[in-house]
Amino acid sequence: MKGYTVRFLPHDKTITVDEGTTVLRAAMAAGVHINASCGGEGVCGKCRVLIETGAVEGGITEKLSRQDIEQGYRQACLSTIRGDLTVRIPVESVVDASILNMQSTPRRMAGIQEPDFNELKEQGLFLPPVEKKYLELPEPSHQDNLPDVSRLIGFLKLEHDEHRLVVSLPVIRKLPGILRQSGFKITATLARPVHPGRKTHIINVQPGDTTDRNYAIAIDIGTTTVYGQLIDLITGNVLAQFGDFNAQISYGEDVISRIMYAEKPGGLDKLHEVVIGTINGIIAKMLKKSGIDRDDVNAITLAGNTTMTQLMLKVDPRYIRRSPYVPASTIYPPIMAKSLDFELGDHVTALVYPQISSYVGGDIVSGVMGSGMYRTEELTLYLDIGTNAEIVIGNKDWLACAACSAGPAFEGGGITFGMRATKGAIEDFSIDPITLEPMNITIGNVRPKGICGSGLIIMVATLFEMGIIDNKGKFNRDLKTPRIRETEGIVEYVLAFAENTQIDRDIVLTEPDIDNLIRAKGAIYSGCMTLLEEVGLNVNDLQRIILAGGFGSYVDLAKAMVIGLLPEVNPDQVTYVGNGSLMGARMSSLTNRIRRDVVDVTKRMTNFELSETRSYMDNYVAALFLPHTDINKFPKLKARLESRGKSHREHLS
Amino acid sequence: MKGYTVRFLPHDKTITVDEGTTVLRAAMAAGVHINASCGGEGVCGKCRVLIETGAVEGGITEKLSRQDIEQGYRQACLSTIRGDLTVRIPVESVVDASILNMQSTPRRMAGIQEPDFNELKEQGLFLPPVEKKYLELPEPSHQDNLPDVSRLIGFLKLEHDEHRLVVSLPVIRKLPGILRQSGFKITATLARPVHPGRKTHIINVQPGDTTDRNYAIAIDIGTTTVYGQLIDLITGNVLAQFGDFNAQISYGEDVISRIMYAEKPGGLDKLHEVVIGTINGIIAKMLKKSGIDRDDVNAITLAGNTTMTQLMLKVDPRYIRRSPYVPASTIYPPIMAKSLDFELGDHVTALVYPQISSYVGGDIVSGVMGSGMYRTEELTLYLDIGTNAEIVIGNKDWLACAACSAGPAFEGGGITFGMRATKGAIEDFSIDPITLEPMNITIGNVRPKGICGSGLIIMVATLFEMGIIDNKGKFNRDLKTPRIRETEGIVEYVLAFAENTQIDRDIVLTEPDIDNLIRAKGAIYSGCMTLLEEVGLNVNDLQRIILAGGFGSYVDLAKAMVIGLLPEVNPDQVTYVGNGSLMGARMSSLTNRIRRDVVDVTKRMTNFELSETRSYMDNYVAALFLPHTDINKFPKLKARLESRGKSHREHLS
Repeated sequence: MKGYTVRFLPHDKTITVDEGTTVLRAAMAAGVHINASCGGEGVCGKCRVLIETGAVEGGITEKLSRQDIEQGYRQACLSTIRGDLTVRIPVESVVDASILNMQSTPRRMAGIQEPDFNELKEQGLFLPPVEKKYLELPEPSHQDNLPDVSRLIGFLKLEHDEHRLVVSLPVIRKLPGILRQSGFKITATLARPVHPGRKTHIINVQPGDTTDRNYAIAIDIGTTTVYGQLIDLITGNVLAQFGDFNAQISYGEDVISRIMYAEKPGGLDKLHEVVIGTINGIIAKMLKKSGIDRDDVNAITLAGNTTMTQLMLKVDPRYIRRSPYVPASTIYPPIMAKSLDFELGDHVTALVYPQISSYVGGDIVSGVMGSGMYRTEELTLYLDIGTNAEIVIGNKDWLACAACSAGPAFEGGGITFGMRATKGAIEDFSIDPITLEPMNITIGNVRPKGICGSGLIIMVATLFEMGIIDNKGKFNRDLKTPRIRETEGIVEYVLAFAENTQIDRDIVLTEPDIDNLIRAKGAIYSGCMTLLEEVGLNVNDLQRIILAGGFGSYVDLAKAMVIGLLPEVNPDQVTYVGNGSLMGARMSSLTNRIRRDVVDVTKRMTNFELSETRSYMDNYVAALFLPHTDINKFPKLKARLESRGKSHREHLS
Repeated sequence: MKGYTVRFLPHDKTITVDEGTTVLRAAMAAGVHINASCGGEGVCGKCRVLIETGAVEGGITEKLSRQDIEQGYRQACLSTIRGDLTVRIPVESVVDASILNMQSTPRRMAGIQEPDFNELKEQGLFLPPVEKKYLELPEPSHQDNLPDVSRLIGFLKLEHDEHRLVVSLPVIRKLPGILRQSGFKITATLARPVHPGRKTHIINVQPGDTTDRNYAIAIDIGTTTVYGQLIDLITGNVLAQFGDFNAQISYGEDVISRIMYAEKPGGLDKLHEVVIGTINGIIAKMLKKSGIDRDDVNAITLAGNTTMTQLMLKVDPRYIRRSPYVPASTIYPPIMAKSLDFELGDHVTALVYPQISSYVGGDIVSGVMGSGMYRTEELTLYLDIGTNAEIVIGNKDWLACAACSAGPAFEGGGITFGMRATKGAIEDFSIDPITLEPMNITIGNVRPKGICGSGLIIMVATLFEMGIIDNKGKFNRDLKTPRIRETEGIVEYVLAFAENTQIDRDIVLTEPDIDNLIRAKGAIYSGCMTLLEEVGLNVNDLQRIILAGGFGSYVDLAKAMVIGLLPEVNPDQVTYVGNGSLMGARMSSLTNRIRRDVVDVTKRMTNFELSETRSYMDNYVAALFLPHTDINKFPKLKARLESRGKSHREHLS
């Protein structure tokens, strides 16, 4: 995609964006505020900007006068960038650039970390779990009437130097027919031992030469969403991927309500059945899309949290939610996919990621494996943020982990207008330091319906940095704007008035919303700190932070550090692995090295029960401020607040 | 049981028999002829004997006059021995003892060989495949909330020094409930690795202490009959055994017709289903009889011929009956019993004995293992006689095997009045050298219905030794007796006239019957000789003969050597293992040593296709005589025939 340079005046900020970006989003990315209430749909008409040089596509609406249009005014939210631009933002009054620029920092997401198979290969870590071998066997005769299986094994030895082979009953059942149907020209599918020196299993035989067709499936079983990838085991490429809601949602939104449903008569069977149905649906869609034959799928790897894993395996999860929170097992043996009712060949083994504890599950272990954290020298913090946040700290020598209940704020739960990160969610925000008018950008550029987690972080951070809320999250009562008001005793900021929303109500951010976010981030931050303390380290020792989870990709790192969700580190040290669970499942599909290492890693991961850790509550209480009781833990923010607070106060005075 | 001494006059032969034996059977065992047509039922009245000293119970019938009874005459077949006796046999004329004694030799069956577990233990070969361990686990707490499986594994390590443990999904599923239901006092069932150093599988957990309940099932799947044993894995004892017809019989009597049925649509599934049904029935009866809980059965081992094995496993057997006779596999992996539809716990693995070729199956390998032949220094001939005879020659260093089609003569097939060894079958026979009157003894001491295989061998051997048939099996046409006659061109000997039978027809032995027997024994003998030649040995090198199969227990060894079925060896060298297949299955249930060795043994067993062996046909043709074309191969018989022939000729002249 082409990149164009956009210069914003009078701020004099320049940014390079992809062709097709709107001017509004470019401004947001550059840290330039433009009033915009309607999320980018074009109805509020507030985002009027002057295109001084260059040209945009669109942006002309009835909100602009003929004269405006002739002068070069456009609505920023509807103007698509097709070349280098200079854009001037009309400002209410002449203010100096320091005020203009205090309101927002350029967005800085974590760099995306993708698995690097070439690196794995170079390091000798690429050990394919399943391989195919083509054979042209001599036909039996009176002088040579070896049993079919002996013939197969003998020639695998002779022609492919394969040893220590074992054959499954299904292969024995189909071999005689396939040999004779194919003129004794067949392809054998070999499953390699995870531990060297163990036996290789001949898991399938197919007529003719099918050595170029060898696939695996990786599945992340989330409480809300299940994701799948279809992987080419020869190239390592993802050929198809698909996500779908976990059908268990009908039986309970969260882990606890699922467990309660599972305790009812027939409940466990039902939950098992429906999640298998979800997975089978995803498999079917991926196979259809890629045109791949089910018989060429040779492995499935699944990762999920402890409850999702137990439900998928039909293992009663009732003790997970009861003190002292005991899961059934950490490591699960390889299981025939058919026996779990997966619609895959009867030669396919399901590999299930091990768990650490009731609340640090296979999804986290998978992320640790997939991200390579367990192989690195660097002291790393792995953070998967959701309703429950899981924290892993360590490197190749040791690993410590813990889970903390953050509450659902990051997923929009407990927030008055909170919602998931779907169309209509305000995902980005800035505020005019003078007028306190908002700039809302929504997913899909439509009128807002609510606020998603990443948007919420940006809002609270921005309001705090601007001095509109204090370090307890309370609004400055002195500010005169209709957007800050008290309704039924609750102080709130109006993000969008009813007419600019999809829901015919004012969308607001309330003090209790902010409080919920503070408690959520406080739980996570104090979890990280407590875990660091338990292992005798502190924030400065961290060399790397890996973010995982659907949420992590949208988090503005600077803002996350402003609210004190993340410790203040160099953003270059932060990477994002996306769905770490799916990534690990994919990696395990591709190399036995990961399968082998995972058992050791699981044994090495020391679980800390935060609720049993004395200092956790102290750390938590100290973290219930923006960014923290002790601002000295966030020195850069402290410096910024001091300088901006000064100029802001000067301006307002 | 008490033993009594019975002395027969005028032969002056003495024998010791169990209390309750009839005088007729005692005479037969002593090699004393008493005329008896009716098999021992008392109706022919011919077996009149004089009890000179001692007393018998019964034996008084209307066939005897009052005077007879007062003098001490009794019917031998109805006289039960209750003390030491002297019995005088009335003889038609005064003949010298050499004539009296030429007609029969005392019966000499093979010594029964039973598995000797103490010997196994002494030799360090007793490695229990399944063991139970009782554990009292600490309950989880906040300070110790290990997953349930980790707790189990940890304490098995700590308290029982168990290492390298893996757990199956069914165990994981049931463990949490059982731990809490039993107050964390449980018994774990451990399946030991067959190869040392591999992993131990925790296959079951039970509440409380069940370490004294540990059982296994051994099954022999015969084409006609299926036998099972329920084995106590702690004591090695057989707690129950049961046999039943293989329900596949409804779909074909023999292996070939079963294969043909399996080739029909749905046929294989049906045959699989019904034999599993037979086995499940046997299991249910054994469990019921012994009062043992199904959950305490921890293993099942099955042996059968190649076709029976493939049908049981639902592996298409069509290529077994088609040249070049290729079975699907030799070795089968361990298979979950549930997946084969056995009604056993889902923790039970089915172990299936490996095959050597299409016609040397798991029943033979099982016999080789169970008999210990593969561990001995002695050069051994293992012979399982049925419709197909399987021959194994070798010792601990090497093994060679072959199958030959003997035809069904030994099971009564192709014999005019042939029948299986059930009630009413003539199982023993002698003939008066002067009058040519028979002495028939039937199974169950009832009037005869036919002739079973072991009876047939005795008849033909006796008739041959007496000179009544020649070495081609043809009757001496010069003998004057109504019992030798020609009917519709076929010469035959009347064993029992219609009035003394259960079938209202004369029961006869015809020349074609004898010819069938000669061909059957010729096939087996020549098979043994050809196999010996192929490995560069001869009969004199054999140090031991092991007979197996239902038939083997009843074979009179001396008679088998007379007809040339067995080579002429010292009877002490011959042992009988009964159902060798079942014996091996039982042994494999009891010790992993057998399970480990069987793979090597299977690889070591060289199969010879007799039909592809040039000398087989020559050996066969040479064996189509009684005992053989070359009488010098049977020197003892030759000497006997020469001496007796002389005196017989003198007597008859």
